Amino acid sequence: MSMPSSADPTDPPSTHAELFPDNPVLVALTRGDAVESFHRGAAIALRADGRPLLAWGDVERPVFPRSALKPMQALALLEALPDAPDLTPERIALHTASHAGWLMQVERIREWLEDMGLSEANLECGTRDWPLDPDAARELARRGGRSGPVHHNCSGQHAGFLRLAQAMGAPTAGYIGAEHPVQRAVTAVLGDLTDVDMATMPHGLEGCGIPSPALPLWAVALGMARLADPSGLAPSRAAAARRLCAAMAAHPDMVAGPGRCETRLIRTTTGRVLAKVGAEGNMVAIIPGHGVGVALKMDDGATRAAEVALGLVLEALGVLSADDRAALAGVFQPVERNAAGVETGHALAVTAPEDGDGDADDPEVDPWDEDWDDEDPKGPDAG
Amino acid sequence: MSMPSSADPTDPPSTHAELFPDNPVLVALTRGDAVESFHRGAAIALRADGRPLLAWGDVERPVFPRSALKPMQALALLEALPDAPDLTPERIALHTASHAGWLMQVERIREWLEDMGLSEANLECGTRDWPLDPDAARELARRGGRSGPVHHNCSGQHAGFLRLAQAMGAPTAGYIGAEHPVQRAVTAVLGDLTDVDMATMPHGLEGCGIPSPALPLWAVALGMARLADPSGLAPSRAAAARRLCAAMAAHPDMVAGPGRCETRLIRTTTGRVLAKVGAEGNMVAIIPGHGVGVALKMDDGATRAAEVALGLVLEALGVLSADDRAALAGVFQPVERNAAGVETGHALAVTAPEDGDGDADDPEVDPWDEDWDDEDPKGPDAG
Repeated sequence: MSMPSSADPTDPPSTHAELFPDNPVLVALTRGDAVESFHRGAAIALRADGRPLLAWGDVERPVFPRSALKPMQALALLEALPDAPDLTPERIALHTASHAGWLMQVERIREWLEDMGLSEANLECGTRDWPLDPDAARELARRGGRSGPVHHNCSGQHAGFLRLAQAMGAPTAGYIGAEHPVQRAVTAVLGDLTDVDMATMPHGLEGCGIPSPALPLWAVALGMARLADPSGLAPSRAAAARRLCAAMAAHPDMVAGPGRCETRLIRTTTGRVLAKVGAEGNMVAIIPGHGVGVALKMDDGATRAAEVALGLVLEALGVLSADDRAALAGVFQPVERNAAGVETGHALAVTAPEDGDGDADDPEVDPWDEDWDDEDPKGPDAG
Repeated sequence: MSMPSSADPTDPPSTHAELFPDNPVLVALTRGDAVESFHRGAAIALRADGRPLLAWGDVERPVFPRSALKPMQALALLEALPDAPDLTPERIALHTASHAGWLMQVERIREWLEDMGLSEANLECGTRDWPLDPDAARELARRGGRSGPVHHNCSGQHAGFLRLAQAMGAPTAGYIGAEHPVQRAVTAVLGDLTDVDMATMPHGLEGCGIPSPALPLWAVALGMARLADPSGLAPSRAAAARRLCAAMAAHPDMVAGPGRCETRLIRTTTGRVLAKVGAEGNMVAIIPGHGVGVALKMDDGATRAAEVALGLVLEALGVLSADDRAALAGVFQPVERNAAGVETGHALAVTAPEDGDGDADDPEVDPWDEDWDDEDPKGPDAG
């Protein structure tokens, strides 16, 4: 009776505690009168100068931000094409998107490919079984359609990669490879915006085939803060960041899709808060008016929890109005219903216990600490 | 800047630590060369006399076992109809199932309803958007079909509830209600098999509308152990338990569906290990040859983790042969691939660190304790 030796990822150089930090519970799901499941994670909000507003859990450990990196990655295209008329705000929003796969999104991506003299066959993202959104999948099924690369939730980003390859005079084939000029440019932007030496980070492969780097959560938030407040960046990069934020604010339906968390948040706040999900429980936010960036990662990879945890962070930052809160209750405090439509429970953002249990890293700024309010009495609104 | 008071489920009577136990990491998912996500949970394996073989994490806290209760719940029907010829082993397996929604399953349930003089309209489980299994959903979509109550993963259990109502001379309408004779009989069986006073337990509503009681994890495992070894039960109940296990062993395709974890496990072990998943990260196993019951619940509700954690428990119990292990590698050590079919990472069962960190409740029997092997040197094989 022995444990399978192949099942032990705790070999050197990492220890069990480093691999699996004891992060705080951020979200609970109830059933009837009790908690059914709960989700742990880490979250951080920073200003562009690196000053933290909140930090919960282990924000040092490298995590794979996945598609939450897209707003940063998009700067490579925007800087390469500062004034190309074909790169419309709508297409910029699609380039930052994990789109739901609705016909109205897919058709715009097809048009973009045609404008480039390309087609769906040039997309190297692969084909998913269904569009990301179940309603969009049903729409496709009802029309008798079949899922292709253009339905992949990353196809808008990939269309932009193809456009970047053309702009660079590089071959379009192979644009997903780590050594292709497109991905080298994208990786360089990530390193610049986060102050991280990308060569030292763990890395993997994305669901859509491009490189998937890991980054400390603080670095992800720092990059988002610099998109929110690009005043410290070089002028051409700062202009690209402003253009990016304006495009996401103007086209929330393209960033995700009708009914989805990021789209509803951007629309409700009329772009005061921009957000982007990443697979495996990642979420980032860009808050331009306050110059704040947010990054969070749920330990277990649950998107349902990342959405509710984003609400907790935005509440803690004081950036939601009473009207916002009411309009977004379905996103940040969702009610669970069964197949007959009867309420069975709900998701709750969870405040940490008074003793700070679960905050593994003793963060510099701990909103659960009663003294924290004294340190920054008005939150980001004072900034 | 304050936390939303409505978001605090830590009000009395439960404390934060009671609601959110510090359970051990049981499963990790890698991307490239690093851990991407990880899952905590609790697990216990018992003999029918209550003697624990292993206990990891908090096995005292009530959890909602969801559909993992179905094998126990099925005894109500089997005891009411000890020799009815229409209650075939195939239908018994469907009554314990969370079926995938394949045509071959749906047609058998329709036939069963017709045999009772009933139809799909008598099912009160509600309608899900799609069958549970994506492949089954695609099958339905390709045929131009629409999802109805019979496609709900619980429709086989509900067909059996209707049969039980007829057997009891009770009205079929309203059979999902807590006060209906069918659900009262089902609740009574659960209390008997687990030695728990069901009236004292938290309760909620199931996804399919029936009562959803919570139970301590040890009690769930005890009930499964008594199904595995019914020698201590009343003769009629013991006969029903044996009939149940034989039906699940004979019809693995009906218990879940082709390709799914439980079906593959039952088929590979030719019924030496019976398993049943429950929503929100629940899994149980019945090991008749050893008289052992297993129950586990992932904190975060992830089915993908419950499946891998079941493999870890079965390894710890020593019930898998080398051939079983090889045949089930795709279930218990799954490789993750992206949309292009390229490997991006894998899921790993995780052994606990030597210091026992994360075992909240100091379980009586701790397999991570070096002395444990001495206590039970041969595992369940010795029983």
